[in-house]
Amino acid sequence: MKGHYKDEAAWQAMVDDGDPLHYEVFEKEIPEAFGHVLFCISKLQPGRVGDECFMTKGHYHTILETAELYLCVRGKGYMAMKTRDGESVLEPMYRNRMVYVPPYWAHRSINTGDEPLISFCAYQADAGHNYGDIETEGFPKRVFIRDGKEVVQ
Amino acid sequence: MKGHYKDEAAWQAMVDDGDPLHYEVFEKEIPEAFGHVLFCISKLQPGRVGDECFMTKGHYHTILETAELYLCVRGKGYMAMKTRDGESVLEPMYRNRMVYVPPYWAHRSINTGDEPLISFCAYQADAGHNYGDIETEGFPKRVFIRDGKEVVQ
Repeated sequence: MKGHYKDEAAWQAMVDDGDPLHYEVFEKEIPEAFGHVLFCISKLQPGRVGDECFMTKGHYHTILETAELYLCVRGKGYMAMKTRDGESVLEPMYRNRMVYVPPYWAHRSINTGDEPLISFCAYQADAGHNYGDIETEGFPKRVFIRDGKEVVQ
Repeated sequence: MKGHYKDEAAWQAMVDDGDPLHYEVFEKEIPEAFGHVLFCISKLQPGRVGDECFMTKGHYHTILETAELYLCVRGKGYMAMKTRDGESVLEPMYRNRMVYVPPYWAHRSINTGDEPLISFCAYQADAGHNYGDIETEGFPKRVFIRDGKEVVQ
């Protein structure tokens, strides 16, 4: 997760202090080929880097025009979404809420709560993941917890 | 549902007696175009035609090599699945069980219980539905309730 959080020093201190698990993705073995539907459970731990909420790396799909479907099954937070054209939204995630990530939108999960943020996801199996562009671009909005309140910047 | 059940006379009597609702599909409006993921809730009522369990029409996808993902959220029954090559299975459906319908497999839901069989499903949005071939071919296995027990024939 190097380079993803605003406070690089806080990130480094956290890594030096034991490098806690950020998130896991549990996938069924499905061929990553046209016609299949890939599905997974994503489990994002609660935590802060400085005062910024834990998040996933985020990605575009390699086949950019492929969508992804999320269903939050536990916890709370946001699905941060953005396009290459500069559009950006934070979709709330909470138990039983579905979020549809349309074609062309990059997306990342953000955990604002005190328990794991667990989501079910499904997408066209040949979609592919492009993490590199997010490492360079980041997302326009970050979510912090300050004095017990969410701050989006 | 004409022609789908074994006992045509029982089916006709049921239709003449008020033609009860078999099933409903609730879909979010998503473009049926490449790249999108279509998702829906299917609600199949409990009931029998003669002693054969209520079921959905069943379909192949028009793009035959597209899969579909099911998650049973209520009720119990089976996902009947078959290929054009003569392979056939009945996958159990019960709350929280997922069933993956691989590319090329036709599929239909069968409700063996006394409450609605409710499933969440997701698939590539341009997959399309081919119901006509099932009307002609049917499925190799039917499920009946006789003396309170499931009978597969």
